[in-house]
Amino acid sequence: MQEYPSELLGKAVDELAGLPGVGKKTALRLALHILRQPVSEVDDFTNAISKLRHEVKYCSVCHNISDTPVCPICQDHSRDRSTVCVVENVQDVMAIENTQQYHGLYHVLGGIISPIDGIGPSDIEIDSLVQRVEQGGIDEIILALASTMEGDTTNFYISRKLKHTGVRISVIARGISVGDELEYTDEVTLGRAIINRTAIDK
Amino acid sequence: MQEYPSELLGKAVDELAGLPGVGKKTALRLALHILRQPVSEVDDFTNAISKLRHEVKYCSVCHNISDTPVCPICQDHSRDRSTVCVVENVQDVMAIENTQQYHGLYHVLGGIISPIDGIGPSDIEIDSLVQRVEQGGIDEIILALASTMEGDTTNFYISRKLKHTGVRISVIARGISVGDELEYTDEVTLGRAIINRTAIDK
Repeated sequence: MQEYPSELLGKAVDELAGLPGVGKKTALRLALHILRQPVSEVDDFTNAISKLRHEVKYCSVCHNISDTPVCPICQDHSRDRSTVCVVENVQDVMAIENTQQYHGLYHVLGGIISPIDGIGPSDIEIDSLVQRVEQGGIDEIILALASTMEGDTTNFYISRKLKHTGVRISVIARGISVGDELEYTDEVTLGRAIINRTAIDK
Repeated sequence: MQEYPSELLGKAVDELAGLPGVGKKTALRLALHILRQPVSEVDDFTNAISKLRHEVKYCSVCHNISDTPVCPICQDHSRDRSTVCVVENVQDVMAIENTQQYHGLYHVLGGIISPIDGIGPSDIEIDSLVQRVEQGGIDEIILALASTMEGDTTNFYISRKLKHTGVRISVIARGISVGDELEYTDEVTLGRAIINRTAIDK
């Protein structure tokens, strides 16, 4: 057992060690770093985190993080409002936005169906997605979830839930990554890539 | 450039990325983790860090971190008050305390002489160490600094500064680590270990 010379230090180390990927040794290093910073900078740090948790909102339409009740993407009328891309979380929205290849709207599920983790369909934003589609104006739903068992399960569940609406549903392409060598690609990916081959435009 | 969907998130990510060893990607992961925590836990987190910076004190005798004006080690009269171990920082005190092999007092320099980093003798607690020795009651000073150029420089400087007091000065042993194989030990360490060999008690 590590003994801290100060209770304040011990408490701060415990709290920092609660962050994902931070152990006790790293937490101690972070705490001693914080002690060496000017008071004003530490105040900025704690204020930013406190405000983040207390004041951040989620877009009432797509459930993305937002400073306003409706997020800038949902408010942007220059975007294609008939296409909605379904993603697991906020990082995925940022990743797709960074590609600059997508100009439609989003729907953030806030998770993925995972019985092992106790996450069922009612724990994520599937019902609100069905409602959005039922309200009309949406032609295509693009499912952009992870290529895992959980992702496939969620894809299957959503497509069944949306069947009655008649909306077009697609899944992002799965195949070998750009730059990949065939001999180092795993068999399942390579097998699927051959089955789902696309025609070359001539 | 990463675009954040919320200014509050962007600000929190910037602040978290200011911690040592935390990049933008990790900072985003931490920020989104914080968003998923209950408000009360985030408040505990920010309070612990804020209190650490605002309320922590340094022991007026040894300069170790302390919740009281004089730290528990300096107040402990069961310890050997005639021996003072000089260390670079708070972690070193904890490391030595964990060995349970030392029962004297400490003196935390708060750094080490390093001209490259612009740290001179007056930037660390050397003068207060000399004063402590001059006040009397101390028989031995143990220098427990890193076995580096900077550590050696600081050892040399302190021993010269303390020469007039006549106090006994020692340096912690340098040699091969417990469990080390000779063939993998670096030449300088092995060479010094041979020169500084110790007699076996019979």
